[in-house]
Amino acid sequence: MELQDRTRRSSDRRLSVGICQLRQGYDVEANIERACELIGLASGDGADICVLPEMFSTPYEPVSIRRAAALSASALERVCRKASELGVYVVAGSLPWPSGDGRLYNRAFVVDPKGEAVYHHDKIHLFDCAPCGGPNVRESETVAPGSSLGSFTTPWCRASVIVCYDVRFVQLVQVLADMGVRLLFVPAAFSSATGEAHWEMLVRIRALELQGYVVGVQPAVNEDLAYVPWGRSVLASPWGEVLARAGTDEEVIVTEIDMTYTDEIRSRFPLLAHRRADLYETRWKGKG
Amino acid sequence: MELQDRTRRSSDRRLSVGICQLRQGYDVEANIERACELIGLASGDGADICVLPEMFSTPYEPVSIRRAAALSASALERVCRKASELGVYVVAGSLPWPSGDGRLYNRAFVVDPKGEAVYHHDKIHLFDCAPCGGPNVRESETVAPGSSLGSFTTPWCRASVIVCYDVRFVQLVQVLADMGVRLLFVPAAFSSATGEAHWEMLVRIRALELQGYVVGVQPAVNEDLAYVPWGRSVLASPWGEVLARAGTDEEVIVTEIDMTYTDEIRSRFPLLAHRRADLYETRWKGKG
Repeated sequence: MELQDRTRRSSDRRLSVGICQLRQGYDVEANIERACELIGLASGDGADICVLPEMFSTPYEPVSIRRAAALSASALERVCRKASELGVYVVAGSLPWPSGDGRLYNRAFVVDPKGEAVYHHDKIHLFDCAPCGGPNVRESETVAPGSSLGSFTTPWCRASVIVCYDVRFVQLVQVLADMGVRLLFVPAAFSSATGEAHWEMLVRIRALELQGYVVGVQPAVNEDLAYVPWGRSVLASPWGEVLARAGTDEEVIVTEIDMTYTDEIRSRFPLLAHRRADLYETRWKGKG
Repeated sequence: MELQDRTRRSSDRRLSVGICQLRQGYDVEANIERACELIGLASGDGADICVLPEMFSTPYEPVSIRRAAALSASALERVCRKASELGVYVVAGSLPWPSGDGRLYNRAFVVDPKGEAVYHHDKIHLFDCAPCGGPNVRESETVAPGSSLGSFTTPWCRASVIVCYDVRFVQLVQVLADMGVRLLFVPAAFSSATGEAHWEMLVRIRALELQGYVVGVQPAVNEDLAYVPWGRSVLASPWGEVLARAGTDEEVIVTEIDMTYTDEIRSRFPLLAHRRADLYETRWKGKG
């Protein structure tokens, strides 16, 4: 298959993941342009899959999100073109996308090396929270919740994507593990308060529970924004080790991961197999 | 109620938890004696609930565990007497207890201030694992798995206990949260390898997911043992903060916790309420 030949730069089981920790401003057009540049940089450094943060075209602020929505179709088109041009997968963090009820889906797209959007995930859990340290966010006023969970194939393994707050809900990882997922992308935009308290720990633990790799990608810190993201993107191994960790600035980090390590961990430390199916069950009732 | 008056040293919502990080040796009788002394020390420092580690009467080694089983009934009796004498709750980490199939349950007892064993939990998930860094353990050769999950009342809140490896299985905390549990004890005996890799992170994350307090109690490090435990007992808040952290030596740490903080976190950051019951469900199928 031509597609597989183009993407298998490394091997059947090894691939390189490019974290694109974009620094966003209020210029939506510039954010999209820069996202495409970072994909180019990651690909230049050998990335097979490039990953953008949540709502990469806009800061996580309601007015800006609504404004950015008008450019989402164009943003996706440009990302698709870039993916096809470079022959890479892109996990296009998320974009605001019309939901039909006046609100927007917080939708992550997966684009394959032919430039086709082959999968998408609408953020399921909406952040209506007032954490100590702020800010108070009512995401559900702007965003409509998704109700599907699925996965997509890659030449290396089955993969999936969930968005930001979704990572706190342990059931999702259990359901994804049952689908055979071994590589999970988590575009996110944690704030300073929740970022400092929980971000890295959540990515590490979910990787441990999935017995796979988890790639958490945040926007860079930008103190000029009203909602200041935490930065510090992180890639964790099936043993919960941190394999890559970004700082606070805009940054591209390309990391090679080896899927045979997921076999080894699952064999030596069979957490998924040790679940007591006779005693409890996490059942997915929504759309597949 | 006389019982409540005796135990409510602090207030309706505040209580003190005493971590008893026992240093075990191969003398089972001495371990039991020392456990009772540590309960006394914790109570002297104001503890309302004293917590012992997993298999407190013996190092986590099959031969020693089988030998210690003969003294478990006597160990429990002495802990009950101590609890009644001091008017405190004791979470008696765990003891090897006859299962009927030639193996032993890894059973944690909860003793109330009248000296009655009011609840017990048999470790559900058995550690048949060979983590990198060792040691290779086949717990199921010595231990029979439990198949129940429940909770108990205290004057401050509903509480429960799970043992060591159980803490890695996210479903248990979800089921316990649904029972109304806000205080979870995790007697454990992580090794150096799994301790360094995961111990504190697991306790912190489970507290975050429970939106309650989690108290993880380990034996002290003792390099003279074949199975060297990790020590470093930890008490985590509903925000995943570390409120108390032991070192590697034998140590008693008494920490006051405030159950009103669980209300605050659940109100400001309603993770449990934000679960999407329409989309997924974690169902307990075993005995209550």
